[in-house]
Amino acid sequence: MPLYLEDFTVGQKHLTGRLRVDAEAIKAFAAQFDPQPFHLHEEGARESLFGGLAASGWHTAALTMRLLVDSDMKPAGGIIGTRAEELKWPRPVRAGDELHVEVEVLEVRPSRSRPGEGYVKCRSTTINQDGQPVQVLVMNLLVQGRPPS
Amino acid sequence: MPLYLEDFTVGQKHLTGRLRVDAEAIKAFAAQFDPQPFHLHEEGARESLFGGLAASGWHTAALTMRLLVDSDMKPAGGIIGTRAEELKWPRPVRAGDELHVEVEVLEVRPSRSRPGEGYVKCRSTTINQDGQPVQVLVMNLLVQGRPPS
Repeated sequence: MPLYLEDFTVGQKHLTGRLRVDAEAIKAFAAQFDPQPFHLHEEGARESLFGGLAASGWHTAALTMRLLVDSDMKPAGGIIGTRAEELKWPRPVRAGDELHVEVEVLEVRPSRSRPGEGYVKCRSTTINQDGQPVQVLVMNLLVQGRPPS
Repeated sequence: MPLYLEDFTVGQKHLTGRLRVDAEAIKAFAAQFDPQPFHLHEEGARESLFGGLAASGWHTAALTMRLLVDSDMKPAGGIIGTRAEELKWPRPVRAGDELHVEVEVLEVRPSRSRPGEGYVKCRSTTINQDGQPVQVLVMNLLVQGRPPS
């Protein structure tokens, strides 16, 4: 059942499943997209700000997206982010971390330029196995309105 | 030569190299991190908002990071983003697009809590081969100050 714009309400919460990240995945993402020593190998990470191997923030963001796509939150038309107002990584993701995402709807508004569509602003907080946030993202999603019946 | 906090000035610009994205890379990223029809295959994309295969925004973000890491902009301690204030995708990245990134320094300020370090706020605009922006990111980077000599 897709969720139409009218199905979203401020304060609504959605919860994703869980996903475990290992060192291989952290290093593979880094080799492709963010080849800096603290994301690539333990030795390079030890003397860095992170004090040990840390996932790229963009890896954390990509894993967050995967958890959202696999979740029960299925906006009509797909999960289409248009503009984030905030994206931060309060602490790094480490090898062995198990992540899940909590989504809270902050705002629902019809689009002025796209009739029959609108925006859902939500805060998605990515959380590790110790209950600590590793990413906070405030994103505006483009969502279809319910088709006239 | 690493760039210390003192080497950054408001208005300074940095330019990256170029990177071409093909359909295989778009689909591979989507399969791993954003498995929605419009990122996975041409058929699923045709009837979507995008009207054709489009890269995940998180893929565009990851490619932007790769271009930055490979560029001459080498902050001391690495490119460490702590908090983005804006992240938007004005148009999708398509198979065959060739991307580069223009960075402009918006603000330089010492950290109150981390002596000898500071923040460089910059806008990085990712641009396709037609000169059109595909991503705008305003990010705060944590940068080391120059060590006392």
